[in-house]
Amino acid sequence: MQWFFVAALLTILTSSQGILTTLSQSNGGYKYDYATVPFLAEVFKLVVSSILLWREVRTSPSVRMTTDWKCVRLFPIPSIIYLIHNNVQFATLTYVDTSTYQIMGNLKIVTTGILFRLFLKKKLSNLQWMAIILLAVGTTTSQVKGCGQSSCDSLLSAPIQGYLFGILSACLSALAGVYTEFLMKKNNDSLYWQNVQLYTFGAIFNMARLVLDDFTSGFEKGPWWQRLFDGYSLATWMVILNLGSSGLLVSWLMKYADNIVKVYSTSMAMLLTMILSVYLFNFKPTLQLFLGIIICMMSVHMYFAPPNVLVDLPVTAKPEHENLKEVSIERVNS
Amino acid sequence: MQWFFVAALLTILTSSQGILTTLSQSNGGYKYDYATVPFLAEVFKLVVSSILLWREVRTSPSVRMTTDWKCVRLFPIPSIIYLIHNNVQFATLTYVDTSTYQIMGNLKIVTTGILFRLFLKKKLSNLQWMAIILLAVGTTTSQVKGCGQSSCDSLLSAPIQGYLFGILSACLSALAGVYTEFLMKKNNDSLYWQNVQLYTFGAIFNMARLVLDDFTSGFEKGPWWQRLFDGYSLATWMVILNLGSSGLLVSWLMKYADNIVKVYSTSMAMLLTMILSVYLFNFKPTLQLFLGIIICMMSVHMYFAPPNVLVDLPVTAKPEHENLKEVSIERVNS
Repeated sequence: MQWFFVAALLTILTSSQGILTTLSQSNGGYKYDYATVPFLAEVFKLVVSSILLWREVRTSPSVRMTTDWKCVRLFPIPSIIYLIHNNVQFATLTYVDTSTYQIMGNLKIVTTGILFRLFLKKKLSNLQWMAIILLAVGTTTSQVKGCGQSSCDSLLSAPIQGYLFGILSACLSALAGVYTEFLMKKNNDSLYWQNVQLYTFGAIFNMARLVLDDFTSGFEKGPWWQRLFDGYSLATWMVILNLGSSGLLVSWLMKYADNIVKVYSTSMAMLLTMILSVYLFNFKPTLQLFLGIIICMMSVHMYFAPPNVLVDLPVTAKPEHENLKEVSIERVNS
Repeated sequence: MQWFFVAALLTILTSSQGILTTLSQSNGGYKYDYATVPFLAEVFKLVVSSILLWREVRTSPSVRMTTDWKCVRLFPIPSIIYLIHNNVQFATLTYVDTSTYQIMGNLKIVTTGILFRLFLKKKLSNLQWMAIILLAVGTTTSQVKGCGQSSCDSLLSAPIQGYLFGILSACLSALAGVYTEFLMKKNNDSLYWQNVQLYTFGAIFNMARLVLDDFTSGFEKGPWWQRLFDGYSLATWMVILNLGSSGLLVSWLMKYADNIVKVYSTSMAMLLTMILSVYLFNFKPTLQLFLGIIICMMSVHMYFAPPNVLVDLPVTAKPEHENLKEVSIERVNS
């Protein structure tokens, strides 16, 4: 049940992420360059993982670390998928408005389930499939625009390209997650060593983005390293710390739990953010938020509760169960 | 599986009820006295049941008919509960607006589940409870006002009495259903004989209402029987025929299936009406209608599918299952 606490912590961190990001803004905009945030978060994760790896190597000499290039070269792939994903996200937003974009984002819950089944060959029961669909339906319900809110009837009026990009975006996001899980579980390497590889490439790709931004703006504001911390406040540092810590938790979940646990964790975070916003930002609670929360709670219970809690199982009395198995093996042997 | 077809037919009839009622209106109002409709529907059901009972008695002389007053006196009770329910509904509507009233109506799904468990002592699995709650959530989701629709934020702003009356109304509606099921199942009397008793009292109570209306209006428009068919059109007769037929199906379900089947049937009808309204009345389909439909479909599957379809049951391989059972019985015997 260790994964439960990690998932709960991830929920809390992810939900505070939205709130901290809002607090780090001034007058609705960023005083700092937002692209520096993921870069520094990668650096933070790299530093933490390196320290932990160093400690691990010092205490136990049997730490498994595959340094074969054949294996290492797989670690930049998640970063590359995220890079493509970011560009697809950008393309999607040129066709659809932000609220439609947010609604379509829930599709990644379902695509994660599908890729999880296809690529990782994990079997899910019918009920678990239903739970995954309900989770997507529940988060979507909570986001339905109430009456009186702006941007009406834009939902089904975007051009078809917008929806296709939205679906592609959901697939890429799921692919990145499923691929990372595959990477973390494919051998018994130390989690910290896997992290070091993952975040080294992550930091490189994020740095490349900062350099590219400089080139596209023609070095108007000088090179990125000279203005890295410009406009930073305490809240900005909190955002970085938070993003980095949740990244580390996600890595842990990918190795010791799975993508579906992560998806539940971040979906719960979305609802928690909305609940907290009611108190912090005077966000008006809607009936649909309430309904969405009930649906998601049901989904959690359906996915994670053991079958005998959910349904009344047929005859076979529990204490006899082991005996029955022995008998059936004897029958097969004889 | 006979109950499935009866339930499906009830869904179709109930959903056409709303559409026929709309068609029977002219300029948004009724040209005829709407109170005459339930009265004539009761008469229709009484006539049909009497004919069927007569045929049944003629063909098989062993038809069970309890004519003991102790038993007959139980049959007006559903009519009395509906009478109280109508008045509570009226009281509720003085405190809340119609859309809040409609939303609160979904509560009767849950209250039916509770009274079904308490009074009829039927056991439901955890999953079935979740399915019932999801059905209520799903129907509510489909009714959430979209943006741009009228009567905003009235939902949580009604006086507390409105909500209390709403809850009372949901309890009374559930009680009427559960009590009728108890009545139909308490002995092996012919369904038609039970119907004759039920509808005789139903017709009497509905007639009493017409008389009462005459008294309160001071016989302004003459006694009710003189203007019974005033303003009737073909659509009005269809409404009566439809209401009567669905009543007969409900009776059948109460005897041979149960209240939960009825609740599913009428909830599906509500969604079907909304879908049909999209085509017939240019009703604009909303995202929440789509989400509500998915939730309700999941709920149906969760409630009615056999457990082994929903969850992967523990080890016991299917082909060996029968053998295993025999072995375990042998073990118990030896």
